[in-house]
Amino acid sequence: MSAFILISILLVRVGLGMYLAGLTRAKNAAGVVARVICDFGIAALAFYVLGAAIVTQENNRIFAMDFRHWFNAEAAAEVSVFLLFTTVATGIVIGALGERSRFFAMLPVTIVLAAVVVPVLAFWSRSSLGWLARLSVIDDFGASWLHMAGGVFALFGAKAVGARSNKYHRDGSASIIPGHSVPLAGLGALIMFAGLASLLAAGGGRAALNGVLAGAAGIVASLVLGRLRYGKPDVLLMITGMLGGVVAISAGAANVYPIFAIIIGGGAGVLVPWAAVEIDMRLRIDDPAGAVAIHLVGGAWGTVCAGIFCGRGVGGTFQAIGVQLLALVVAVAVSAAAAFGVFKFLASNLRSNEADEFDGLDLAEHDIGAYPDFQQNSIRSYHLREA
Amino acid sequence: MSAFILISILLVRVGLGMYLAGLTRAKNAAGVVARVICDFGIAALAFYVLGAAIVTQENNRIFAMDFRHWFNAEAAAEVSVFLLFTTVATGIVIGALGERSRFFAMLPVTIVLAAVVVPVLAFWSRSSLGWLARLSVIDDFGASWLHMAGGVFALFGAKAVGARSNKYHRDGSASIIPGHSVPLAGLGALIMFAGLASLLAAGGGRAALNGVLAGAAGIVASLVLGRLRYGKPDVLLMITGMLGGVVAISAGAANVYPIFAIIIGGGAGVLVPWAAVEIDMRLRIDDPAGAVAIHLVGGAWGTVCAGIFCGRGVGGTFQAIGVQLLALVVAVAVSAAAAFGVFKFLASNLRSNEADEFDGLDLAEHDIGAYPDFQQNSIRSYHLREA
Amino acid sequence: MSAFILISILLVRVGLGMYLAGLTRAKNAAGVVARVICDFGIAALAFYVLGAAIVTQENNRIFAMDFRHWFNAEAAAEVSVFLLFTTVATGIVIGALGERSRFFAMLPVTIVLAAVVVPVLAFWSRSSLGWLARLSVIDDFGASWLHMAGGVFALFGAKAVGARSNKYHRDGSASIIPGHSVPLAGLGALIMFAGLASLLAAGGGRAALNGVLAGAAGIVASLVLGRLRYGKPDVLLMITGMLGGVVAISAGAANVYPIFAIIIGGGAGVLVPWAAVEIDMRLRIDDPAGAVAIHLVGGAWGTVCAGIFCGRGVGGTFQAIGVQLLALVVAVAVSAAAAFGVFKFLASNLRSNEADEFDGLDLAEHDIGAYPDFQQNSIRSYHLREA
Repeated sequence: MSAFILISILLVRVGLGMYLAGLTRAKNAAGVVARVICDFGIAALAFYVLGAAIVTQENNRIFAMDFRHWFNAEAAAEVSVFLLFTTVATGIVIGALGERSRFFAMLPVTIVLAAVVVPVLAFWSRSSLGWLARLSVIDDFGASWLHMAGGVFALFGAKAVGARSNKYHRDGSASIIPGHSVPLAGLGALIMFAGLASLLAAGGGRAALNGVLAGAAGIVASLVLGRLRYGKPDVLLMITGMLGGVVAISAGAANVYPIFAIIIGGGAGVLVPWAAVEIDMRLRIDDPAGAVAIHLVGGAWGTVCAGIFCGRGVGGTFQAIGVQLLALVVAVAVSAAAAFGVFKFLASNLRSNEADEFDGLDLAEHDIGAYPDFQQNSIRSYHLREA
Repeated sequence: MSAFILISILLVRVGLGMYLAGLTRAKNAAGVVARVICDFGIAALAFYVLGAAIVTQENNRIFAMDFRHWFNAEAAAEVSVFLLFTTVATGIVIGALGERSRFFAMLPVTIVLAAVVVPVLAFWSRSSLGWLARLSVIDDFGASWLHMAGGVFALFGAKAVGARSNKYHRDGSASIIPGHSVPLAGLGALIMFAGLASLLAAGGGRAALNGVLAGAAGIVASLVLGRLRYGKPDVLLMITGMLGGVVAISAGAANVYPIFAIIIGGGAGVLVPWAAVEIDMRLRIDDPAGAVAIHLVGGAWGTVCAGIFCGRGVGGTFQAIGVQLLALVVAVAVSAAAAFGVFKFLASNLRSNEADEFDGLDLAEHDIGAYPDFQQNSIRSYHLREA
Repeated sequence: MSAFILISILLVRVGLGMYLAGLTRAKNAAGVVARVICDFGIAALAFYVLGAAIVTQENNRIFAMDFRHWFNAEAAAEVSVFLLFTTVATGIVIGALGERSRFFAMLPVTIVLAAVVVPVLAFWSRSSLGWLARLSVIDDFGASWLHMAGGVFALFGAKAVGARSNKYHRDGSASIIPGHSVPLAGLGALIMFAGLASLLAAGGGRAALNGVLAGAAGIVASLVLGRLRYGKPDVLLMITGMLGGVVAISAGAANVYPIFAIIIGGGAGVLVPWAAVEIDMRLRIDDPAGAVAIHLVGGAWGTVCAGIFCGRGVGGTFQAIGVQLLALVVAVAVSAAAAFGVFKFLASNLRSNEADEFDGLDLAEHDIGAYPDFQQNSIRSYHLREA
């Protein structure tokens, strides 16, 4: 089964790369793929060196480390599963920082998430010694300990780095900055959905069915939302709804009846696209890939719903909802504290200078053009450059 | 194994999205990806709500429903497998209606296929209670009950919606309307092949080997065909041959010797590209993605071949061929009746208006441009628009 | 497990297609995808007809054939696994011959590799009767018998076909000829990594973990190398390092401790990108996709390291290193002899004529344009053409 999780999560990474590249302007498209690759490498090593010691510990209940896995191949399957899970969380942040942050500023963010935050949360929720696991929290596939953790980091990161130039205007209006390839974004989202839904199959036949149904319900609900709100089948809302649905079901996939998976996914299919628009237009937080809406809002909705629909009778359900809310608060609190620290540490080193942003990060940071054979609408910078 | 089927068929969907997007002009490329996503969502829900009740029934032989699966997680694995299979059929129709049909007209087509037609055919062929299954029909992976069903719908749809503007001319000639990205189409076809061949591995080692060999034979046969007929290795014929090969083997994969898989795949590699050209040029049916040739012709060829090469002795083989022909006729008859009804019902609501088709459906239906950063050869419409 | 290998290696092929297309100029992009598809078909059939008889023989130790598999479905799983492995080797050569070789010249190369070279090497290293296997060679996933074999063919092919026009100049300088889509190349490399790492999971949990860690170490090491040598995070070096890491670990994945996987992958992450630059700039061998560096250098490094880190004590380790070196020498010798022969046989038929190369092979060989809707920077040829 670890083989299956491996291929599923590597597909999620591929889909993430396509999705983010598609939502990025052509002048930043090579760099975002480089970030997706680099983030994976850093996250895997950071998790292996420190995070695995946290999540596989067997000696105490609160927090400790156990470096047996460095010299012990027995734990390899377990370590590799949690390592791969962890990369789902770190990938979330890349999009929120897209098109205006420095390449190397991403590294500390990835390290903190992969080496400490996700391992601690995963240990609490998934290890038999974890205190949330002992309270029978329902979150097999990380709606709280993966998606919300990544989503909180994305939120803090997007706030810290600020909006892209020309995104919000003095008169209160906001521009949409379209990515360079809608088909690439849509196909990448489809691969992410494929990977995340396949991953759920590790929880058995019911989890697999629930994953597909929740994604499907997210698609259909967001289709209806787009038709009602904007009078058209909105492509990007539909993508957001699909991803929100499969994120939301990741808490309760193995525990709820399929009919409730449809409700959870359908709810996410309304809530997540709506939140994406609100975050962008009302809160004026510039999150080019909708990471906060998909993972933080979708994850929170799914975490709570896993309690609501757990089917443990009235008393058991109220208790379960309480535990789920506790897991939600814990995930937010721990992630927010860590994210606050790491973005405070990065401070002004996080943001690209304006000329680089204008030229595109491909040229400025990587000295490469993503599409040298095609005539583009982009404008080369005539700013005075010092380096 | 249901986990494996899940990932395989989700990859088929991803490949389908890439393939159709690549074969579509840039002005329709975002919308076709949206259709591929939306069709999946609608098909999954339609199957779950009604189709699953048909295919998992255990009470009678002809036709009934059994909604146990709504409240029963035991059947989840079986339901999820048939749900995913069903999406293979509905995806076939998208391409045949491409570039000139209305977005929402697609929905009833998907619903009828996923909720009724495929479940009924699948029940007859795959359930132990099905009358074709009791006649020992050989069609484990749906050459007849999936591919031919989808192919018949594609044929009726392409006829009903009519050819794209400027496709066929008064002097009897026909234009090829090239898609916007041959690499995307080829890579998508390769992913579809990967998904369909992997799917066959659910039938054991022999089925896996046969799937790969049939696809390979389809590639080589169509390569030779292209060289002989057009004096060049034709890229699109080779893609069509590969897909035809893997569709054709889906009937007999687990039953025939590998040497016959090569014959079945090689035959499809000649027959399917040849049919694609004939359907386009002689029958003047505009099927932009070759769906009718690949799935209807490839599926029919494979269904019959599974009988011919079943290796049951002379008497047994003749009987098997008879049963396979019966399955073929049944699949065509049921699908044709349903397709006739649904396209009759849609009538003139199926076709986009001409100005929308000229501008591209991305702009007209989704208010989006697929590739905003690239300079394109397309022309914006100056028709008077009313909405 | 053969199902799992099937999907992994088919994903490698998809990733290869994306990677090579991305590194190719737009004028050759459709043809390279056609070659990736065609090569798969030819390799599969060539292996099945002859190669499988070599690798599955059970009668003698040195070299013989056993055609039982033609009429025996028992061996299907084993045959399909080796068939798929073989396609990894043939795919390597496509890139090295890219943008200036004739389509049909590729076929004999593929046939010799798939029908003879890889089967013989695989039989020696992987069959219980193979003499290298009896010496306990450590190479489960083909660092020597797949990657080095393909890499040697790539080296001989790149030498035989010569550099692309305008690649190397009279003054000793060399031009980089950028591919048409860096995102496509990067995403394709990521899929190849996903496929190759998943493949290792067939060797158990430790192999899976080692695959991911070696790839991650390759990414990080090449990132550091790019930063130090060129002052930037170089996208293409990072891709090369990632692939080098996962190729290198394919020898010892199931045998070494994870900490050594990091060393093996990290070493490849320095060695392979460095070799890619040296081969290009100093040896002036034009290998557009870095195939020689990734597979020959990466494979050799991994083959030796599997001995160094096998953990069999001092005496056992020295013996293991000896055996690994022997396997390395054997792989190079056999492959070089065969490659010398086949490229001698092809002689001047290998190279496209200069006008075809200038126009692009898509137009010249396939009569197709890869991206008809986009305005490109390429120049159509006004050479006098005869055919």
